[in-house]
Amino acid sequence: MKKHNFNAGPSIIPEYAKELTAQGVLNLNNSGLSVMEISHRSKEFSAIMEETASLIRELLSVPESHAVIFVHGGASLNFCMIPYNLLQTRAAYLDTGSWSSKAIKEAKLFGEVEVVASSKDKNYNYIPKNYTIPRDADYFHITTNNTIFGTEIKEDINSPVPLIADASSDIMSRPMDISKYGMVYGGAQKNIGPAGVAFVIVKKDILGKVDRPIPTILNYQTHIDNASLFNTPSCLSVFGCLNTLKWLKNLGGVEKIHKMNIDKAKILYDEIDRNKLFQATVPNEADRSIMNVTFVMTEEYKEKEADFLAYATSQGMVGIKGHRSVGGFRASIYNALPIESIKALIQAMKEFEANL
Amino acid sequence: MKKHNFNAGPSIIPEYAKELTAQGVLNLNNSGLSVMEISHRSKEFSAIMEETASLIRELLSVPESHAVIFVHGGASLNFCMIPYNLLQTRAAYLDTGSWSSKAIKEAKLFGEVEVVASSKDKNYNYIPKNYTIPRDADYFHITTNNTIFGTEIKEDINSPVPLIADASSDIMSRPMDISKYGMVYGGAQKNIGPAGVAFVIVKKDILGKVDRPIPTILNYQTHIDNASLFNTPSCLSVFGCLNTLKWLKNLGGVEKIHKMNIDKAKILYDEIDRNKLFQATVPNEADRSIMNVTFVMTEEYKEKEADFLAYATSQGMVGIKGHRSVGGFRASIYNALPIESIKALIQAMKEFEANL
Repeated sequence: MKKHNFNAGPSIIPEYAKELTAQGVLNLNNSGLSVMEISHRSKEFSAIMEETASLIRELLSVPESHAVIFVHGGASLNFCMIPYNLLQTRAAYLDTGSWSSKAIKEAKLFGEVEVVASSKDKNYNYIPKNYTIPRDADYFHITTNNTIFGTEIKEDINSPVPLIADASSDIMSRPMDISKYGMVYGGAQKNIGPAGVAFVIVKKDILGKVDRPIPTILNYQTHIDNASLFNTPSCLSVFGCLNTLKWLKNLGGVEKIHKMNIDKAKILYDEIDRNKLFQATVPNEADRSIMNVTFVMTEEYKEKEADFLAYATSQGMVGIKGHRSVGGFRASIYNALPIESIKALIQAMKEFEANL
Repeated sequence: MKKHNFNAGPSIIPEYAKELTAQGVLNLNNSGLSVMEISHRSKEFSAIMEETASLIRELLSVPESHAVIFVHGGASLNFCMIPYNLLQTRAAYLDTGSWSSKAIKEAKLFGEVEVVASSKDKNYNYIPKNYTIPRDADYFHITTNNTIFGTEIKEDINSPVPLIADASSDIMSRPMDISKYGMVYGGAQKNIGPAGVAFVIVKKDILGKVDRPIPTILNYQTHIDNASLFNTPSCLSVFGCLNTLKWLKNLGGVEKIHKMNIDKAKILYDEIDRNKLFQATVPNEADRSIMNVTFVMTEEYKEKEADFLAYATSQGMVGIKGHRSVGGFRASIYNALPIESIKALIQAMKEFEANL
């Protein structure tokens, strides 16, 4: 049976990218060698790294002021690299969920942290508004999309200090005005490609301003200076990213996928709002993520959640169980998820309602 | 033409592992999903992670006192993680090459470093002997195999303080008495599998003794407590490691491959010693690496190096150009390199000599 992959991450990869990646694992460009067994400094692999960075630059219209690099360790390693590189005295953070909280925890090891606002009071089911970003902060950190709680900051907000955004789970889902950010970063394993690499788009002039010594590999400047080849990267992951980004470019790029993502999210939220069994966990439509759609069963039907999960699974849905901190269901509908999979989920919801 | 892959790293991967990896990229265990697009916390991926760690444990007879974990960033990230986790006051390092030097550089950010001996005086062409390991050092760090300079510490040395070994390029090439080490670590991309993951075998009771706060992801204990799933690992790399380690186990394990490696190294060094055109860069046989065979042309034939490189390349040799700090040639003859490839290189050397 056809599987509909709603995994939150690592998550669905386009067939095109899977096939190119498998081909490169066996025999890269008819070289007789696997992409796994060539030097990261070979011209073949340097070209892969360079093209991957160039595609990110092209797809997001990254200005010359910003470098595009790949580092190790996913977003989580960046949680400590960011304050290591940027926190001189005091940093400001917006707390919109588990990942924000983790970023805040690491920053506190390096200096003073001001949490300007938090939506923790309502289990992170909204995006805080009307907060003030302190003008003396070294930077202001946000999580643009909250994978677990299904909220998203969809605008490029204005910040008087460098704006640092963990965009792990909505990068490439919509156009961004990169010039408004000091740094946009995240793990690759949603819309960029497979896990194993973190992308970093950083405004070059915000670096080099802290006094503390920084271990070489944790210093963003190292990776800029070495074109992301300071040490051996996760070559296979980078190659998978290249193939995924090629797919996105062939499809028409970020503006095109954004329209598709809006359509995909709309029909699913519409069904959740219509179907008497379900309700969205994020009440404010403007705050609802177009990447992770979180929903539960209404009080009246709450005890049917396990049954619906079993039914949806029987219909080919994969990965729709909600995160334990929210419960219910989560449909992660990243770039590569076809609208047919969302229609299949909607049909399962309708059938379950009709057969109740 | 058949390629003979002498790359220093990332380096040759067994065909068996390439095929299993490509299959998993397309469709893991007939699940209909790629290994790239399932949650790292799914039972399918947890099983991959667990089996990979178990195979390392089994192949190296790792005692219960030691944990086997995977971390991000290759050996280079460990260069700063080691002092972060272990350097309270003073650490001792043996300087046997570029990688040792890099490890020393990072340790100096965290405390006092005593370099107990160095072979830098002779361009690292030997392993220092007769040094004293200070009994008050927090640990003693060595690089067991020096990929660039072709030297290797082949014995499990006795140390009065925790012995920390970067074994990136000779792990799994020979049996090791892990009980004699506080930690053995390295990048995977030689004998463990593809790049993108670092293995760490650490004696649990050496951790938790430093006063400094450690960023969560840089704390080895985090990865022990979370079975290497604290955050998303480089899933595809781990899967490639599993397939490579399965190949090694099927072949007969580390004792078997050790015999094969000794045979492989012996015939190549014998030819270098016999052939009037060539000489090994490491004069002392006991110090010669069985993984990276470094050699140059003798003074008399020095100007023929480019010609030999061209000839060997025409015969299918890949990656035999020596590192710029040594010059000449380097044949990296890791576990997966078949003896046929070494015989092909030897034949090219003989033919070049005969045709001169």
